Amino acid sequence: MPEIAYINNNFIPLEKAFIPINDRGYLFADGIYEVIVTRNGKPFLIKEHLERLQRSADGIILEMPASLPELSEIIETGIRKAGFTETMVYVQITRGIEPRRHNYSAKLRANLTMTFRPHPEYDPQLAQGVSIITVPEIRWSRCDIKSISLLPNIMMKQRAVESGCQEALFVTEEGLIHEGTAGNIFFIKNKTLYTPQADQYILNGITRSYILQQAAIHGIKQIERECTLQETLKADEVFITSSTVDLLPVVKIDDSTIANGHPGPFSKVIKNFFP
Amino acid sequence: MPEIAYINNNFIPLEKAFIPINDRGYLFADGIYEVIVTRNGKPFLIKEHLERLQRSADGIILEMPASLPELSEIIETGIRKAGFTETMVYVQITRGIEPRRHNYSAKLRANLTMTFRPHPEYDPQLAQGVSIITVPEIRWSRCDIKSISLLPNIMMKQRAVESGCQEALFVTEEGLIHEGTAGNIFFIKNKTLYTPQADQYILNGITRSYILQQAAIHGIKQIERECTLQETLKADEVFITSSTVDLLPVVKIDDSTIANGHPGPFSKVIKNFFP
Repeated sequence: MPEIAYINNNFIPLEKAFIPINDRGYLFADGIYEVIVTRNGKPFLIKEHLERLQRSADGIILEMPASLPELSEIIETGIRKAGFTETMVYVQITRGIEPRRHNYSAKLRANLTMTFRPHPEYDPQLAQGVSIITVPEIRWSRCDIKSISLLPNIMMKQRAVESGCQEALFVTEEGLIHEGTAGNIFFIKNKTLYTPQADQYILNGITRSYILQQAAIHGIKQIERECTLQETLKADEVFITSSTVDLLPVVKIDDSTIANGHPGPFSKVIKNFFP
Repeated sequence: MPEIAYINNNFIPLEKAFIPINDRGYLFADGIYEVIVTRNGKPFLIKEHLERLQRSADGIILEMPASLPELSEIIETGIRKAGFTETMVYVQITRGIEPRRHNYSAKLRANLTMTFRPHPEYDPQLAQGVSIITVPEIRWSRCDIKSISLLPNIMMKQRAVESGCQEALFVTEEGLIHEGTAGNIFFIKNKTLYTPQADQYILNGITRSYILQQAAIHGIKQIERECTLQETLKADEVFITSSTVDLLPVVKIDDSTIANGHPGPFSKVIKNFFP
């Protein structure tokens, strides 16, 4: 089954999908995106993802090229056409296509593209816990917007991978943890779940929100506030979360082993919140 | 004469230039660029621009797809083929093309594209001085790299244009001026030329360097240091600089008129440094 793209209102093989060189996504990172995965063939938390896409569009003052129900329909059609067991849907909306200049025309129409690829299989080794590195927080101060302006993220993710680690955690000069390059961070201390509050410096992950909601239902005490690296290193459990991995236990941060170096009980309980 | 693009080692009409949807420039802003303009048909300060392109590549750990002499030759060929009186050359290099994931393959080959368009004619009205707005510094902390990760720049440029202004000036919480969305800032006080030092928070403009060099030759005293918005508002003259505009006198910042609201003598002297 080939990977497919949705472009110019059509589904085509992904390798035949091209965009004009004047697309402002290519020239200026002037766009937003979402990654949605299926579970049992159905897009998981699709409503939440599309609502965040709308908030990202509002954040960069971009008029959406389709309504959320229309986007939902295109996504479901694409999943059906692609025919994978589980699909990873990538939705990108850019400001549109016009000759390069920083400001843009009022009449510009946003450009919607999507890709439909198989969801990568879960590597069971990861359940044993992963190592991450810390990196300086060098990103812009509107990380609440899920934009394609991801250069610092990919630079730091590459650094992590080249160090044999799974993720890089952005830490401020003041020693506050923000988030990973592609996911949020949580820790457990004395049976309480901690995560940095969702302000302008971190993306309010859909998986993050889902975990907080489920933890509340299951009576797990939770605190959203500024969190330091120092307290994270001394936590009972640490994990990172995202739509593609759900939850990965973190057993090492830089040279520090977390607790006894093995995933703890809360990570397993919370992992089981996912269908 | 049509606008042309250089792509896949060929010159083609710009409107026929398309890039694969999997280009990391489109997906992640994983790329760098330069804008070079001609004067009397010759690319101005091309060596300086290409050397900066190399520094930007080094800054994001990207291997250049061509040597600087090769790039120079492609640029000169494109200028000749396009045949405009004066040309604006846009050079973009992205990490390359592969299925979307944050980290990248070691073997990935960078993707070089260029466009050749007529240099916009100079609007003589601008010599009377322009108004600019100040905006919060929300960008990442590696603005010394000329990357395509420009979302904050275009958002703020649009805000300026919609306010009837020419540019937006990034100002930190501490009241320090950094630069505009597409150019550097200078001011004159007591016959001395001031501009923020080129650190990780501003791009060391080629035009900026050219002006400092020429000013030194002409015996104008110059100081590169942290500059506050407050002292800029009280300056004798203020101007912004970039490769496409050379120098534009600034006569108003937000609601504050600079000096007597007209371009001063130094702006005119320095403007004449350009051939």
